[in-house]
Amino acid sequence: MKINGTPYRSVWTDPDGAVRIFDQTKLPWALDILRLATWEEAAHAIRTMQVRGAPLIGAVAAYGVALAMRQDPSRLDEALAVLGETRPTAINLRWALDRQRSRLHNLPPAERADAAFAEAAEIADDDAETCRRIGENGVGLLEAIADRKGRVNVLTHCNAGWLATVDWGTALAPIYMAHDKGLDVHVWVDETRPRNQGAALTAFELGGHGVNHTVISDNAGGHLMQHGEVDIVIVGTDRVTRTGDVANKIGTYLKALAAKDNGVPFWVALPHSTLDMEVRDGVAEIPIEERAGSEVTDLTGRTADGRIETVRVVAEGSPAANPAFDVTPARLVTGLITERGRCAANEAALLELYPEKA
Amino acid sequence: MKINGTPYRSVWTDPDGAVRIFDQTKLPWALDILRLATWEEAAHAIRTMQVRGAPLIGAVAAYGVALAMRQDPSRLDEALAVLGETRPTAINLRWALDRQRSRLHNLPPAERADAAFAEAAEIADDDAETCRRIGENGVGLLEAIADRKGRVNVLTHCNAGWLATVDWGTALAPIYMAHDKGLDVHVWVDETRPRNQGAALTAFELGGHGVNHTVISDNAGGHLMQHGEVDIVIVGTDRVTRTGDVANKIGTYLKALAAKDNGVPFWVALPHSTLDMEVRDGVAEIPIEERAGSEVTDLTGRTADGRIETVRVVAEGSPAANPAFDVTPARLVTGLITERGRCAANEAALLELYPEKA
Repeated sequence: MKINGTPYRSVWTDPDGAVRIFDQTKLPWALDILRLATWEEAAHAIRTMQVRGAPLIGAVAAYGVALAMRQDPSRLDEALAVLGETRPTAINLRWALDRQRSRLHNLPPAERADAAFAEAAEIADDDAETCRRIGENGVGLLEAIADRKGRVNVLTHCNAGWLATVDWGTALAPIYMAHDKGLDVHVWVDETRPRNQGAALTAFELGGHGVNHTVISDNAGGHLMQHGEVDIVIVGTDRVTRTGDVANKIGTYLKALAAKDNGVPFWVALPHSTLDMEVRDGVAEIPIEERAGSEVTDLTGRTADGRIETVRVVAEGSPAANPAFDVTPARLVTGLITERGRCAANEAALLELYPEKA
Repeated sequence: MKINGTPYRSVWTDPDGAVRIFDQTKLPWALDILRLATWEEAAHAIRTMQVRGAPLIGAVAAYGVALAMRQDPSRLDEALAVLGETRPTAINLRWALDRQRSRLHNLPPAERADAAFAEAAEIADDDAETCRRIGENGVGLLEAIADRKGRVNVLTHCNAGWLATVDWGTALAPIYMAHDKGLDVHVWVDETRPRNQGAALTAFELGGHGVNHTVISDNAGGHLMQHGEVDIVIVGTDRVTRTGDVANKIGTYLKALAAKDNGVPFWVALPHSTLDMEVRDGVAEIPIEERAGSEVTDLTGRTADGRIETVRVVAEGSPAANPAFDVTPARLVTGLITERGRCAANEAALLELYPEKA
């Protein structure tokens, strides 16, 4: 997608093989492009969240292996082990490293670097293509609304955009595609407390690509739906169960309730890798990460004169709790948008689209 | 209520007749007690929101008239006019000034100051008593939960506490009363974006009085209800319609939906003055104030080294919308807690409690 007219991916390579990323810890205040010349630098970038979003982490880890093979092709196991520990819970990280391990471990060391770069590029291209297809499979929903009433008002929560993947994003892919086709699309961006990924990243992405949008407090979406200001909700997800329950950023469930109460379609965009066919009851079975209360009590932003400051906004001495995700029951989900097409949020529909997962 | 063991009201007088308030623009970062010695200072305090909350504004305005009568009892009309314009939309402000006008305008000037101080004290006492009765009429709900399961987990949104009234508050009155009776009550405090009245004022109030509480992002309540962590929701309100629809701080509607979806009782605390018997359909008829987008994009808090800073948290160039209230339909409201007792959120039940409003 574009930043002020220039097309970017969230990870790419220089002609000399160095890997380029945005330092996402600096967004939206500074657009710092980092050059990763060693696998240690790639590991550091993942560990310190200079890159975030499961698909992007996987791609950067794969490039990390490639950098390692260029530095010393005999140290494959060490590179895989260290990179694998940078973000222990990211499923895509393991998956990308396993792909590199399979591709490389039987190759002679002299051939490993080229093969590893090719594999990393394939992983990145695959992700971009998966997200593009999610866009293609979702854009029809927006076109149908545009045909009926002109402007399309979409509400989204958190950041499921191109910065979290390699390109396009998941929930934002249909929106970018609609915008590029010339539809009059406008996005209500939930700020997404406590980490403000909507206010910081989604707003930055949409603004950079030229998509009309308005940031709102997480409290406002229900009121907007009551007054006909939201035509459709599209969100990403961290895990979808066999039965269509949807784990996503905390607060998603509240928007799904409001959508149901007001007859607004509520769609969830995901690639196949997000399906967890082992889990049936999302609310009961999916463990919810409890993060530091300081994410609620303290906020970072930019002062009028350009300094980055962190301020406490909660009364001194008051503790905070910070559950990071919630689960939206399938009964509140209008449908799923995947790279293979759209389907209802239930087991039969999912298995029709993904028979190999039965 | 107490601040660290010392009982306070939100407005009181010195032996010499000067009026004391907290500078609420400094809370929760500093506990500045202001001394208002002239009616001009009282008008300034209301205008600059050093005092806020409809009942408290009314009481301070009444004391403002008393200060004016002590300064120059011939200037009653001028004082009433200027004080009446400090916050043009506050209903309680007009009501309190009308009470002073009726009491004073036929009195000889020499008797006005004493009468005005007596009337202001009565207005303040009446408000404190109204709120105390709301507490008495609501505490039984918490006692019933405590009898059944020990600890009582209450969720509240925004600030409907003693700082917004003269004492006790509305939604917080039953909570303070339960705490003072020795119940094991714990409050989930919605931070209440964008103005953070929960994080700043409700947390400060509860902490000061020693009530166990935890601040959460506004996104978290639904998840907590899904997992049985909320026994009851109690909120205040800005206006209740004849049919029981409830206008309150933006985001209240989302919590009411989650409460309904999880079988959690959702109660609204209010004094009679908040009833608007002219309105039937709250969602359609109550105008919702649209406030400045800067309240969403910019936040004020305290740095680790004690400086008060305002920071922008939204990507540069992205606009924000800021509807300040929403309306919760009566069908989502378990009941109303008033100074006359509890009732269902419908016309028949309200008229049974307030027959004079038919």
